[in-house]
Amino acid sequence: MTSALTSRPGRLMAAEIREQPAIWRNLLAHGGAAGIDAAAEMIRARRPRAVLFVARGTSDHAALYAKYLVEIRHGLPAGLVSPSTMTAYGARPDLRDVLMIGVSQSGGSPDLVRSLAVAGEQGALTVAVTNDVSSALARTAHAHVDVLAGPERSVAATKSYTAQLLALYLLLERVRDVDGRVAAAPLPDLGDALLARADEIVALAQRYRFAQRMLTTARGYSYPTAREAALKLMETSYVSAQAFSGADLLHGPLALVDPQVPVLAVVASGVGGAAMGDVLPRLAERSADVCCVGHPAAVADAAVGFTLPDGAPEELSPLLEILPFQLLALHVSVGRGGDPDAPRGLSKVTETL
Amino acid sequence: MTSALTSRPGRLMAAEIREQPAIWRNLLAHGGAAGIDAAAEMIRARRPRAVLFVARGTSDHAALYAKYLVEIRHGLPAGLVSPSTMTAYGARPDLRDVLMIGVSQSGGSPDLVRSLAVAGEQGALTVAVTNDVSSALARTAHAHVDVLAGPERSVAATKSYTAQLLALYLLLERVRDVDGRVAAAPLPDLGDALLARADEIVALAQRYRFAQRMLTTARGYSYPTAREAALKLMETSYVSAQAFSGADLLHGPLALVDPQVPVLAVVASGVGGAAMGDVLPRLAERSADVCCVGHPAAVADAAVGFTLPDGAPEELSPLLEILPFQLLALHVSVGRGGDPDAPRGLSKVTETL
Repeated sequence: MTSALTSRPGRLMAAEIREQPAIWRNLLAHGGAAGIDAAAEMIRARRPRAVLFVARGTSDHAALYAKYLVEIRHGLPAGLVSPSTMTAYGARPDLRDVLMIGVSQSGGSPDLVRSLAVAGEQGALTVAVTNDVSSALARTAHAHVDVLAGPERSVAATKSYTAQLLALYLLLERVRDVDGRVAAAPLPDLGDALLARADEIVALAQRYRFAQRMLTTARGYSYPTAREAALKLMETSYVSAQAFSGADLLHGPLALVDPQVPVLAVVASGVGGAAMGDVLPRLAERSADVCCVGHPAAVADAAVGFTLPDGAPEELSPLLEILPFQLLALHVSVGRGGDPDAPRGLSKVTETL
Repeated sequence: MTSALTSRPGRLMAAEIREQPAIWRNLLAHGGAAGIDAAAEMIRARRPRAVLFVARGTSDHAALYAKYLVEIRHGLPAGLVSPSTMTAYGARPDLRDVLMIGVSQSGGSPDLVRSLAVAGEQGALTVAVTNDVSSALARTAHAHVDVLAGPERSVAATKSYTAQLLALYLLLERVRDVDGRVAAAPLPDLGDALLARADEIVALAQRYRFAQRMLTTARGYSYPTAREAALKLMETSYVSAQAFSGADLLHGPLALVDPQVPVLAVVASGVGGAAMGDVLPRLAERSADVCCVGHPAAVADAAVGFTLPDGAPEELSPLLEILPFQLLALHVSVGRGGDPDAPRGLSKVTETL
């Protein structure tokens, strides 16, 4: 591994952020062969009555995104498993008719492998979505989807996250007999155009040079973006960044908001963004300093913002929305003299039992 | 409503914290008549294959606790619904064989009422767990469990939370034909004994007088405690308090930890506390300042702490664990010259659509 002392801070993270549109192009071209078609066929044959996800960290946010897809587009009950129930507590649930999807960049965390193994023993159809076809999680599951992000060297996951989002989208659309590649086709060009505006984020990062606390908020499909944005800021810049669904924010955490706690709000076009219509006026009442990542009208109403490109359906907007936050985390970290490629206390593969 | 300006700050919150053991006694004596027996009978007759919960804020933490009970003790898949999928997005999932439990103090939030109504139309058996038998949520559900906490006047929910925990425990045990009142019988006396030690928390609150950020962490049944503790600190003391499961903490947020960010860890006796064995050494490596609420050996290893009384089984420990955190939120708020009975930006009933 290149020493962080001898290379430009954040070099790995920056390079992997830039790679993302090319990875999406590749996944759109080769995802079927990488397991999506076979996994979808297996799922269609089993006709699950419920879908569970098991994941940790960034991958948990990809799983949360997929949970929205399942609830809204498949009309099936869905849940995120608490892994400790099947590992530490030894729960042996009845999982006939259940699809369990494990999501993990490395596919190496023992608690996820164990959870998927137990789920298989308990009657579930199991699918692993990982970035490593030879991983333990891939070998444990009935089917494996490779997100084809290439080796991820940055400790802060970026490219594997959006590759997970796209792979899960393509998989779940394929299950309901829709070729998701059609709706997703514009994404790589939109991503390239967005990343070409990285200078806007460099300027924005200045504004948060001394912020110690932040709130992120969104609703619907964009809520996982708020969660992942907060995690990136935490792990690279050591900001206490907290994510809330817009609705949950009004149930208590709104008290936290004052002009000294910046709020990062995702307000994309569509239902989720429209549902933020209740939330933004409440933030304004509290004189919140809001940075809006979203459609032009929402950005115009905020103190600062970043306009998302038009052209992706709402359910694919999360792939684009996270890019400015990844860049923000990178530039806030570097601006503080840190190195997001070497965050304190972290290593690339986290093994939890 | 008594003006906060003319009464002692935190008077309502303090009174409602103290009421809790008496409320548990009452619920143990009268919970069956308040709907637990009838709801349990209905659930047993329907034999659900999966359980979903819908809730917001503090009640969401009670739902998360119940999700652990369902996964571990009932061996059924369980999930927390994202309410926006059925309200904003209009999802109409197939919920035959599904039990959906709505948890809400007031029973008045329109998005929860709508979610439970849709769930009923889509084939689910619906149960409302509220503190108001005449609420819209209670009237919408097939069955209602009254948590019998009495009118809650403090904006920061305390007594309704532990009453929800106990009601959900008694209900779910009754479903599997166990009389939960036997295991729960010691709780009221243990709670009274714990609350008699409130002076220890008053002293501890001094230590956090100037803390702007905090982390809370736990695993298993105690994880909802960490979540609820963080919310209480946020809404009363405006601390940026973030909760992580011990395992998720190691997947990224560990980078946040330094000696200036106090960590509040719950390490109760049992499986969840034992699973914190991986986490505490990693916190020590980062020179974290840990306050441990838990069993004597765990408290002895921490910088400061509060010893939980012995005598409750692990799955009932969350009722006791949260009490010191409620007191801490109260005393940190008052110590900062605030009034937790009048937190800025909040009102008692939050209506989200």
